[in-house]
Amino acid sequence: MHELITLNHGSGGKASQDLIQDVFIKSFGGMNVALSDSAILQLPNNQIAFTTDSFVVDPIFFPGGDIGKLSVCGTVNDLAVSGAMPKYITASFIIEEGFSFQNLTQIVSSMQEQAEIANVKIVAGDTKVVQKGKCDKIFINTTGIGILDKDYSFISTGEKIESGHKIIINGFIGDHSIAVLGARNELGFKADVETDCACLNDLIQSVLKVGINVKFMRDVTRGGLATVLNELAETVNFGVELNEKNIPIRELVSGLCEVLGFDPLYLANEGKVLMVVHPDDADKAIEIMRNHTLGAESKIIGEITKEHPKIVVGKTEIGGSRIINMLQGEQLPRIC
Amino acid sequence: MHELITLNHGSGGKASQDLIQDVFIKSFGGMNVALSDSAILQLPNNQIAFTTDSFVVDPIFFPGGDIGKLSVCGTVNDLAVSGAMPKYITASFIIEEGFSFQNLTQIVSSMQEQAEIANVKIVAGDTKVVQKGKCDKIFINTTGIGILDKDYSFISTGEKIESGHKIIINGFIGDHSIAVLGARNELGFKADVETDCACLNDLIQSVLKVGINVKFMRDVTRGGLATVLNELAETVNFGVELNEKNIPIRELVSGLCEVLGFDPLYLANEGKVLMVVHPDDADKAIEIMRNHTLGAESKIIGEITKEHPKIVVGKTEIGGSRIINMLQGEQLPRIC
Repeated sequence: MHELITLNHGSGGKASQDLIQDVFIKSFGGMNVALSDSAILQLPNNQIAFTTDSFVVDPIFFPGGDIGKLSVCGTVNDLAVSGAMPKYITASFIIEEGFSFQNLTQIVSSMQEQAEIANVKIVAGDTKVVQKGKCDKIFINTTGIGILDKDYSFISTGEKIESGHKIIINGFIGDHSIAVLGARNELGFKADVETDCACLNDLIQSVLKVGINVKFMRDVTRGGLATVLNELAETVNFGVELNEKNIPIRELVSGLCEVLGFDPLYLANEGKVLMVVHPDDADKAIEIMRNHTLGAESKIIGEITKEHPKIVVGKTEIGGSRIINMLQGEQLPRIC
Repeated sequence: MHELITLNHGSGGKASQDLIQDVFIKSFGGMNVALSDSAILQLPNNQIAFTTDSFVVDPIFFPGGDIGKLSVCGTVNDLAVSGAMPKYITASFIIEEGFSFQNLTQIVSSMQEQAEIANVKIVAGDTKVVQKGKCDKIFINTTGIGILDKDYSFISTGEKIESGHKIIINGFIGDHSIAVLGARNELGFKADVETDCACLNDLIQSVLKVGINVKFMRDVTRGGLATVLNELAETVNFGVELNEKNIPIRELVSGLCEVLGFDPLYLANEGKVLMVVHPDDADKAIEIMRNHTLGAESKIIGEITKEHPKIVVGKTEIGGSRIINMLQGEQLPRIC
């Protein structure tokens, strides 16, 4: 086995085939052998969710995860928040010449590990190799198909949202940003925080399958909680009131944000889902979520209001309130 | 509208939304508005083809096409050669900071133009922006879903191939490689050759729908005709005999290959399909294909043989024969 990826591995010829055999097929057992062909899939019913994401995180390895884990969880979560059960994923790699087989193998193993956890199959792929300096180590695209067993389209649009509905998050915010910044040595000191990167489909299905009246769902990634809530408020023409003191955040993360001048509401997450539920179901939803490993710190963090439509207002700990805008600039490039 | 892409456009915040509105939604009308969500699709039947491809071609504009056209045609063709009718495509962009909106808009228009020709919808997308120097201008991933109205899985595997079956190609080989090399100024002189990049689904369906007994199909891209035929020979354990004088190639391309020391059998194409058909159907297939704009130069170029299993043999113009191996190195990096 070669030790470094060369341009030959992207040629479509013999070396490409070796790469597919030695690295991809070994991990992604069910993958289409030719890998340049289409996977042929039998779907159990007719309505599907279809989503794509490219991952360019820098660095590619960070506490609690790597670009491979991220690439599978990210697409699984996009499908899951649409109410779908993720089923099939494609994986497409753009690799810089000189990248090590060892790192590639590790990344591919992370992908397969998460795919098994999420019960999805990686069924087709593609590899391109570019000259040294023409990309940064490795970029991964994953595109996924999920199955919908009923029509959940209102969950993405939030069209059934009304005033008084409760806003829930499944745990600590900001861990992913801090883990990646730490790995970049941009914190100035070592922070013992791991990414929250995780496949949320099981947690989400555990809420949906007992019939919790979920009105809206979105994974909270780039742009953070503030951006998701602003998009929501804008779309549904309601206001959002956030009880900032209820938002789960690790003391360490909150402290770092103070030192570094970050607002944690804008930090990226990779294992957080925001749900809006009917108030009658809020406690039950919290109970179910807290029984799940990925929801142990779930909390009601705010509610939908008729006041100040399209505006997200945060009630601060000391009783004041502030307007929380959508992320305006780029707080943290290449966080995912 | 901003003139250059900045890191802010990849933040997931306000600037990302503006980019989506100003560029993507304008072209891809049917696209999911949020663009970070899943598209929800209703499929007319249960068996689907699913394929992915990332495009890193350099340069991004070349005679007869650009990276956007390539990215739609490539995925459409991967679906089409599996016997599927392409339906839905996702588009994911990795963009270098400082890339111009004008070029992005042009690329996105090319994508939409090809999507309309191929009758596919671009339904979901993603955009990441990386710092200057961390990728080369723009990379695009497209992932597609196609519908199969009957079981064509044998067409990808070639399992029904037998000795005596005829090998057909739909026209001139090598144009894409020469067009891209020319645009890179690597030919040493100006070559008046355009890429053959095109969506082949209509041509392919015109053959399938009249019941032509197609035994195998593959689009001939990276690695060229030689690589496709070697993969085929290896998989089905038959030999391939190629009449080299019958292979359609422009005089200009053939002349350039001689000068530059390229073997045209290894040149990449983006609008060529290789079909293996039952000999009784070969003439009819040729007739149908020649009636299609994308098949006017279709020819029978060889046949499957029991002799020399797994080996591709070329009969040369002067009556000799040579063994044609799979592409060993990287003839032309970043050709797609």
